[in-house]
Amino acid sequence: MTYCVAMLLDAGLVFLSDSRTNAGVDQINTFRKTTVFERAGDRVIVLLSAGNLAITQGALNLLAERMSSQSDANLLNCPNLFEAARCVGSTLREMHLRDAEALRQQGIEFNASFILGGQIKGEAPRLFHIYAAGNFVEATPDTTYFQIGESKYGKPIIDRVTRRSMPLSEAAKCALISMDSTIRSNLSVGLPLDLVIVRRDECRISSHVDIDSTNEYFQRIRERWGEALREIFSELPNPDWLMSTPPEAGKLASPPSRLQSRAK
Amino acid sequence: MTYCVAMLLDAGLVFLSDSRTNAGVDQINTFRKTTVFERAGDRVIVLLSAGNLAITQGALNLLAERMSSQSDANLLNCPNLFEAARCVGSTLREMHLRDAEALRQQGIEFNASFILGGQIKGEAPRLFHIYAAGNFVEATPDTTYFQIGESKYGKPIIDRVTRRSMPLSEAAKCALISMDSTIRSNLSVGLPLDLVIVRRDECRISSHVDIDSTNEYFQRIRERWGEALREIFSELPNPDWLMSTPPEAGKLASPPSRLQSRAK
Repeated sequence: MTYCVAMLLDAGLVFLSDSRTNAGVDQINTFRKTTVFERAGDRVIVLLSAGNLAITQGALNLLAERMSSQSDANLLNCPNLFEAARCVGSTLREMHLRDAEALRQQGIEFNASFILGGQIKGEAPRLFHIYAAGNFVEATPDTTYFQIGESKYGKPIIDRVTRRSMPLSEAAKCALISMDSTIRSNLSVGLPLDLVIVRRDECRISSHVDIDSTNEYFQRIRERWGEALREIFSELPNPDWLMSTPPEAGKLASPPSRLQSRAK
Repeated sequence: MTYCVAMLLDAGLVFLSDSRTNAGVDQINTFRKTTVFERAGDRVIVLLSAGNLAITQGALNLLAERMSSQSDANLLNCPNLFEAARCVGSTLREMHLRDAEALRQQGIEFNASFILGGQIKGEAPRLFHIYAAGNFVEATPDTTYFQIGESKYGKPIIDRVTRRSMPLSEAAKCALISMDSTIRSNLSVGLPLDLVIVRRDECRISSHVDIDSTNEYFQRIRERWGEALREIFSELPNPDWLMSTPPEAGKLASPPSRLQSRAK
């Protein structure tokens, strides 16, 4: 499994990915899920990948091979990010054509997805979610983020705090807390992390940090977030009134069998 | 979908279930997922159900029919909760025998699970998770809870705060916060809720509350929890150092293509 999240804000983009892959719990490896295509000052395109590693690596290798070509499939030549997303989608379809039937014969689903974000000079920063079928959606003003992989554990905190106007460093903090909740709940998501920041209109990687278990900031956030959650949990009132509420006969409704059972 | 959680504590048991079922987003209904079999003072058995409603209702109806029989399949006659769990498991297997092949022909999986908990006089309170195959596991001293249905959104908070020694009302608060996170993230989980408390050694329902959108305590917990989360989020330091960390050339590692892309 994997967990990747990317946020599109007024100030730019934040990308965070873990690096764990697993084929069963006895075959766990470290592979980075973040890939950057950059011509500094002209464009920066960041891809986060999830799903079958053979498929996503294959697609990324094809994209890399074509970086020296003059074709439309060269991410360094695309006129805009919409075309870049189409290019990645088409590459996934090439992988599908080559591998899907062989995978199917082994009972394996063709499972792969990408988040693509960045900026090409002349455009605003943009963010896309590309599906296994090669189709994709783009973040609109109502969308602050996309997730791929094991997205559920880390979603509630993002929903509660993100807004387009938040500073990039605050968004990075939110992404790290979201990752912490995911790592705690799913063994197949793990360190090290790649955290990448793209400031609006720089058209380059503004900052990249490789976060492993020795990173003091991440350690501190993890500990402090857990402590603070437990603190606010104890500050909320307990429903002590509940303990003196007698069962309401006949209110445990469905199925009808229940009334009979209570009546015995 | 549905979300049910039950906790086994030194002081007794807490059960919480939502009441939404859906067959597509255009067919949403309210069905309670909590069923009680009780002979007050002798035994109380609470069942929470998730999965295909036709299967779980069918199994519950069979269990209810047998409450007047002298057979081993009568939950009011079982000598202990292990036998009660076997009885529910066997009933699920009856449903499988009757329905699984017909469901398979329609491309529908045989999907159903139960949480069974309670106390029979002479035993300690016990808690079981019963799978679609009719097999089951029991909570041990290391396990404070089981979840069925849409379990991921609401799991982190339970993992962080529950312990066997916590008071029942505090556990109920934790279950309600866990339910709130789930309701916010998944449209197919919804109000009203059934919250049931079984105090150790009472062998009856100690308290049952039907929580709908007018319940003041739940409203207050929802609002205050969201506010408090946003507060502790803003109190944590932002990684401002990150903004002055230049990208480390060659550190965005995999796949190899990336180095090539940065080098362009």
